[in-house]
Amino acid sequence: MNQVRELLKIRYPIIQGGMIWCSGWRLASAVSNAGGLGTIGAGSMYPDVLKEHIMKCKLATSQTFAVNLPLIYPQVSDHIDIIIENKVPVVITSAGNPSLFTSRFQEAGIKVLHVVSSAKFAVKAQKAGCDAVIAEGFEAGGHNGREETTTMCLIPKVRDAISIPLIAAGGIADGRSMMAAFALGAEGVQMGSRFVATIESSAHESFKQAVINADEGDTQLTLKEITPVRLLTNPFAEQVKLAYQNGATIEELKALLGRARAKKGMFEGNMIDGELEIGQVSSRLDNLKPAKDVIVETMREFNSLRSQLFNELAYID
Amino acid sequence: MNQVRELLKIRYPIIQGGMIWCSGWRLASAVSNAGGLGTIGAGSMYPDVLKEHIMKCKLATSQTFAVNLPLIYPQVSDHIDIIIENKVPVVITSAGNPSLFTSRFQEAGIKVLHVVSSAKFAVKAQKAGCDAVIAEGFEAGGHNGREETTTMCLIPKVRDAISIPLIAAGGIADGRSMMAAFALGAEGVQMGSRFVATIESSAHESFKQAVINADEGDTQLTLKEITPVRLLTNPFAEQVKLAYQNGATIEELKALLGRARAKKGMFEGNMIDGELEIGQVSSRLDNLKPAKDVIVETMREFNSLRSQLFNELAYID
Repeated sequence: MNQVRELLKIRYPIIQGGMIWCSGWRLASAVSNAGGLGTIGAGSMYPDVLKEHIMKCKLATSQTFAVNLPLIYPQVSDHIDIIIENKVPVVITSAGNPSLFTSRFQEAGIKVLHVVSSAKFAVKAQKAGCDAVIAEGFEAGGHNGREETTTMCLIPKVRDAISIPLIAAGGIADGRSMMAAFALGAEGVQMGSRFVATIESSAHESFKQAVINADEGDTQLTLKEITPVRLLTNPFAEQVKLAYQNGATIEELKALLGRARAKKGMFEGNMIDGELEIGQVSSRLDNLKPAKDVIVETMREFNSLRSQLFNELAYID
Repeated sequence: MNQVRELLKIRYPIIQGGMIWCSGWRLASAVSNAGGLGTIGAGSMYPDVLKEHIMKCKLATSQTFAVNLPLIYPQVSDHIDIIIENKVPVVITSAGNPSLFTSRFQEAGIKVLHVVSSAKFAVKAQKAGCDAVIAEGFEAGGHNGREETTTMCLIPKVRDAISIPLIAAGGIADGRSMMAAFALGAEGVQMGSRFVATIESSAHESFKQAVINADEGDTQLTLKEITPVRLLTNPFAEQVKLAYQNGATIEELKALLGRARAKKGMFEGNMIDGELEIGQVSSRLDNLKPAKDVIVETMREFNSLRSQLFNELAYID
């Protein structure tokens, strides 16, 4: 019995990451309608925008969906009220202390999943009463842990440290990587980059094209002194690199980053000056497809691989 | 039929990495006698020392064993002569162009495996006629690729790019991580850190203890401008970090690194001034054991997991 499916009341234990600027109600409802867990990314939404997306998502699907909520967001308290008032079934919290809000959500009947980048923080999330943990490796796009632990090393370490359900993130985009995550001890996966490159994602078309054109070595974890973030190489990322080479201070880096860079890149499609957050696994993506196809094809490959591993591939007499 | 076993004539498709200062004839023969592929690490050996280790290894095992040969080593030509004269069954080449020496080894009846960190270099290795490829992810210890691609992203990418047998390295230390590598498309694994922490490894006892004491975030990929290398945090690694913060030039970094740092740390046990090369997976190791136990326990977990994934863990109806 798969604990992630039981907990979230979903058909397939595949969670769509709540990526800023890419994950509105269209993507979330498409994923939920296909049997996964669709997620609205609140990190790039003002409270009224979030409310609109939740309401539209509810109209578009009768299935479980989630809101991803970075706890460091300045208007987090407004967001929490909206999530509770609108009875969102699941909240995925990240970038903050899960002990602050978990019980408030749970008292309202909302399941809480917390994103971590280490076993140490996974234990804290379990102690805070979270329903499950999403452990995200170094290869993941966007904001990331300082320990740089990869999914391969992170998942078994976390599995051995906690007893609540575990979902793997970072480097997962198909049935093979999903099966690898299960072998490591996860009972579900979260995919970000793969869902950026879908028809329903609200990413700008230019960003989607850049994602499927990305090759090996085209993303890099940077800005570690502010908040580590994995970016696709573009002129802005090159500027950041140059600033490091010139010994820029944290203040200078913050000034260079400025405001609204992520919106400019991922939502407005400015491939020169925008900040483009994406995972390493983008180097394995070469097409845009409907979110439903991602789910269906992933499960088909996963199920077929399950038999193949048992009967041939992992059979060592 | 597992291609890696067929190619190398070994019982279990587990290769012990040829780590400098840690992999002499004792470790190599113990691994080969246990059914894996033991490897002598030539990178830290003068030609006469290598010859001695090969001869002792042959006396200690009748099974297949290998020599790991970094192609950038200054005395590589002497090493090649010794390997051929002494009929070493397998050579694992790394850090250089595989098209230079592969056919010479093969004409002498020696199988050639080449270590790569990207699909691009895997294709080159296949074109050079190598018998198999070892693809090593960012989490691996010691010298590493510039692309920083993790094992989770690297293995399926390489699998789709080549047709010769593929061995996964980086983050692998037990049956769970071995099964993950197989799910991603590998037919064998190479483990380094796990074999450093064995009774038979020639690593200094202080280094072995430091390896099993390592926690999350305790290793870091550094010296990227010279040759990227993953080091365990110690006062020397802190010095390197400080040098970067102070905007050190490549020449200054090279001077700081100096000579014989790796020997000082890993072989002589100087935990202050020595260079300590180890993988991220060290954070998952908490004991020293005989090399044979590593092989036996890995295969036991791998085989048990194969059934569990099929019957329960990966069964999604």
